[in-house]
Amino acid sequence: MKKDNNSNVDLASVKSPEDIRKMDINQLKELADAMREPLIEKVSHHGGHVGPNLGMVEAIIALHYVFNTPKDKIVFDVSHQTYPHKMLTGRMEAFTDPLKYDTVTGYTQPRESEYDLFSLGHTSSAVALASGLAKARDLIGGNENVVAVIGDGSLSGGVAFEGLDYGATLGSNFIVVVNDNDMSIAENHGGIYADLRLLRNTNGTAENNLFRAMGYAYRYVHYGNDIPSLIKAFEEVKDIKYPVVVHINTMKGMGLPVAEANKEKFHWSMPFDPTTGNLLGEEAPSQEPADYISLFASHMMKRIKENPHLAVITAGTPGAIGFGPDMRREAGSQFIDVGIAEQQAIAMASGLAKGGVDPVVGVVSTFLQRAYDQFSQDIALNHQPATFVVMYGSLFGMNDETHLGFFDLGLLSNIPDLEVLTPSGKDEFISMLLWAETQKQTPVVVRIPGGEIKNVEGVELLENYYNPPYQTLRDGKDVTLIGVGAFLDTMVKAADILDSKGVKATVINPRSVSTLDSTAIDKMKEEKVVVTAEDGIIDGGYGQKVASALGTSDAKVINLGLPKEFLNRYNASELVKECGLTPDQIAEVVIANL
Amino acid sequence: MKKDNNSNVDLASVKSPEDIRKMDINQLKELADAMREPLIEKVSHHGGHVGPNLGMVEAIIALHYVFNTPKDKIVFDVSHQTYPHKMLTGRMEAFTDPLKYDTVTGYTQPRESEYDLFSLGHTSSAVALASGLAKARDLIGGNENVVAVIGDGSLSGGVAFEGLDYGATLGSNFIVVVNDNDMSIAENHGGIYADLRLLRNTNGTAENNLFRAMGYAYRYVHYGNDIPSLIKAFEEVKDIKYPVVVHINTMKGMGLPVAEANKEKFHWSMPFDPTTGNLLGEEAPSQEPADYISLFASHMMKRIKENPHLAVITAGTPGAIGFGPDMRREAGSQFIDVGIAEQQAIAMASGLAKGGVDPVVGVVSTFLQRAYDQFSQDIALNHQPATFVVMYGSLFGMNDETHLGFFDLGLLSNIPDLEVLTPSGKDEFISMLLWAETQKQTPVVVRIPGGEIKNVEGVELLENYYNPPYQTLRDGKDVTLIGVGAFLDTMVKAADILDSKGVKATVINPRSVSTLDSTAIDKMKEEKVVVTAEDGIIDGGYGQKVASALGTSDAKVINLGLPKEFLNRYNASELVKECGLTPDQIAEVVIANL
Repeated sequence: MKKDNNSNVDLASVKSPEDIRKMDINQLKELADAMREPLIEKVSHHGGHVGPNLGMVEAIIALHYVFNTPKDKIVFDVSHQTYPHKMLTGRMEAFTDPLKYDTVTGYTQPRESEYDLFSLGHTSSAVALASGLAKARDLIGGNENVVAVIGDGSLSGGVAFEGLDYGATLGSNFIVVVNDNDMSIAENHGGIYADLRLLRNTNGTAENNLFRAMGYAYRYVHYGNDIPSLIKAFEEVKDIKYPVVVHINTMKGMGLPVAEANKEKFHWSMPFDPTTGNLLGEEAPSQEPADYISLFASHMMKRIKENPHLAVITAGTPGAIGFGPDMRREAGSQFIDVGIAEQQAIAMASGLAKGGVDPVVGVVSTFLQRAYDQFSQDIALNHQPATFVVMYGSLFGMNDETHLGFFDLGLLSNIPDLEVLTPSGKDEFISMLLWAETQKQTPVVVRIPGGEIKNVEGVELLENYYNPPYQTLRDGKDVTLIGVGAFLDTMVKAADILDSKGVKATVINPRSVSTLDSTAIDKMKEEKVVVTAEDGIIDGGYGQKVASALGTSDAKVINLGLPKEFLNRYNASELVKECGLTPDQIAEVVIANL
Repeated sequence: MKKDNNSNVDLASVKSPEDIRKMDINQLKELADAMREPLIEKVSHHGGHVGPNLGMVEAIIALHYVFNTPKDKIVFDVSHQTYPHKMLTGRMEAFTDPLKYDTVTGYTQPRESEYDLFSLGHTSSAVALASGLAKARDLIGGNENVVAVIGDGSLSGGVAFEGLDYGATLGSNFIVVVNDNDMSIAENHGGIYADLRLLRNTNGTAENNLFRAMGYAYRYVHYGNDIPSLIKAFEEVKDIKYPVVVHINTMKGMGLPVAEANKEKFHWSMPFDPTTGNLLGEEAPSQEPADYISLFASHMMKRIKENPHLAVITAGTPGAIGFGPDMRREAGSQFIDVGIAEQQAIAMASGLAKGGVDPVVGVVSTFLQRAYDQFSQDIALNHQPATFVVMYGSLFGMNDETHLGFFDLGLLSNIPDLEVLTPSGKDEFISMLLWAETQKQTPVVVRIPGGEIKNVEGVELLENYYNPPYQTLRDGKDVTLIGVGAFLDTMVKAADILDSKGVKATVINPRSVSTLDSTAIDKMKEEKVVVTAEDGIIDGGYGQKVASALGTSDAKVINLGLPKEFLNRYNASELVKECGLTPDQIAEVVIANL
């Protein structure tokens, strides 16, 4: 906690980068120490990205000291390392005053500040975005510096390479700061990391140099948490007339011993005790997996031992799919982390399946959209029986506008020849997952239900989920309620309410959203009211397929789901109400339409 | 035409690679010459990829000579260079017998041959796919060679880098053949090409070496059309126990003088005279642009001169957006080709717009899906007013299963905050394009109508197309026909037929498919029949939004469009009939439902 470093710097007096440009080196160092204190205080009480921010305090001070922001433009990749940047650009109180913690988001956000150029949360795009700013400057005739700041972990993403490749041809000022802390979210994976290590170990002098090979001038800063070294390097490249990479070697988690020692755990954390590193309110682990992610991981671990030809794959987010360091060691060569490279993960799964392996890719909903073409071309078109398990594909998942989990349903279910299964609870999830892994018929997506782990009573498990028939959970009259995934439980509850009002509703578990069960749909044509509820946007989703199929029938069709909007930091239970997705609301809308 | 090289090789006797493994070097050289003749004959009479195939004859012979295919596995990137591969793997007659020209596709196709591992047509994925095959081999315990063949032009795609980055860590046999002919479809763009050039100019000895920097062993073959040199290099890396790049320097179009001299024009060609290079049946160019692509290009050229802050962008397909070499030169720095790198093109457009430039990205429908995340995150979420013009987004466009143009409508229109305009003809297209380029309100997609260039009579042009109201082209009773894009004209014709039968139909031009016009939709609730027709798959598309919005009304809704299928080499006019999309069929379905 370095309380002893408490300095004379008055953080409240830092209103903008102008204020730090007047400081001398010692004051800047004191500023860094002074900033770390509330940073640690905030992330340990509030949760957030710990390591990335602590590692970048000095570099961000030096960037704003040297470059004439906001005229000079800095694009931060992923932007989860920009807490220090926010502190220096008029948002100090959001870190020093607990009452104001939630006045800023965890990413750059143009609505907050002119110093934030883009709303960014997916990795690897900063160089491409900055190349556009640089080219615009050249076309318009400006002279500002354009700087992209990208972490070593983000470099493995394809769009980062595309940006570097194009940026090298700009022939004008273009500064790429590579923040190398020798870590992605977890450890790095890929051939470029041997090169980065070699460069670190040779003080930047190694012959093999990825950046020079791509056409960049190159500078190396070994002490990337040393403000004078950083200022010197940035001053040398300021106003440069050609593309340059400044490779800085920083320490993730710097200044917080538990974060320095556990870089993966403290990449992002829920509130924790800054001395012990223990999560606040952490309970003793139970024997039963308490959430779907743990359930997935423990099931896959069991299957890895039973099936030597099974491989579990992640694109740089092993933690998000439940595989901590110990489990990864245990899984050995059957666990594959390709680094932050979703296209590689999905295309590789096609190759693995073609080669006779049973690949199971765990992928976070908001990131799978980075590999749409691979899902379509390499997987579906090629009929490779790989399995994809979607994490946080739900309104109950992440809620930053950059990380929304409710666009994947329509995205994947409108690809031909891809079976998209939507289990309603844990037994059905495992049943579908096991079938998907062991069959050779089709590529399969299994979308983990949102919300708390549970089972819906009466759900029948199948041997084969290829274009599965719909299951009728209960039989009614005049009204059919179709609940996709977690909303099956909601539909059962709505049926209970209707029952209490004398309306007997049929409740249906569609199991799959990629193909309609035409027999079931034909039966619905005789209904008065059909309601669909899904954990995703209505547009392009499942319910609209039902509405279309029933378009010429007399049945009234009501599609419930989310609006097509980039919601930001919403409250999930309020959103459910706004969308009319509670059992009471569903019962009401049925009665209103009967 | 090198008729004089006519050799003694009997092509008909080459049934499989086994047959060429018995040949000596002279026979292999004669084989190459003998193969070129029918190759040139076929592509000049039939059309197809000319330069890529002529350049790879020797390399493909050497690959099959050295490697024990099909046990050893070769994945060809894009696979448009695999005509020689097909000739050697049991499909010779598809090139020597004009009656059998259409028995093979232009890409690798597993349904045709066990030597074809994947159905491939999008660039840059071969290394990722092959990395999966190699990893599967290692998990299962095989010993076959795994070879990825990728062109220099494809290297700029992000997934190629992701694959190279991961492949370097395999620690086992993994052979990447980089076919470097110093050309993409057009000239190459990007920093890596300076490195490839340096490597070519130093016979592979330059210090800066992208592949070594990424962790690969490296070999260079300067005479990449010389069979003995190729065989030597491939034999040296056969059964290698670690990842290696074999960089071969080939000549695109080799053996056909007009193709050697005009590499861009003869990347792919319609039927042509092999001596003069003139297209067969080519007419004298008219004053008026004869198709939408030419119309787009000539309009943009005019606007480039009027608006110095406008930039036209392509991701490696300048020809597909109508910009030939002369126009590119004329446009100067306002024309940007980022190479085959769709993610870069779209993200860069966001940076350009943020920097005050008016970017107009021309992108082929089937390739835009490679940058879905950039459309969603970098463009739509960030509200950057860039313009995207979609080429060949239509069933009337390309018809290979790898290049279908009917998935983009749903893909883009279900992204929030993205205006997706569907002009019905040329004047509306230009009107929408001009608005999109000059406004600062929203990102806009303008989807070029499919089929022949025309105007639909009575279409009104607007000053502002932001969430535009629907236009009622003619007012009727009981029946509303909504025609999206090119199908507006169809709906007008269907209304004429209905009129002749005493049914007065309302015809609506929705203009945009991203947002419903609620006033117009409310009016439709009073109708008896509403029919939508769109040039895309029904699933996730526009019509289903209408069906959903009218779900509780008494109107019968019929959604017409394409099935969710990977169709392959279909006949467009037959498909229109199969989908019930002719004016007669639409009139019929209306009457049947009245």
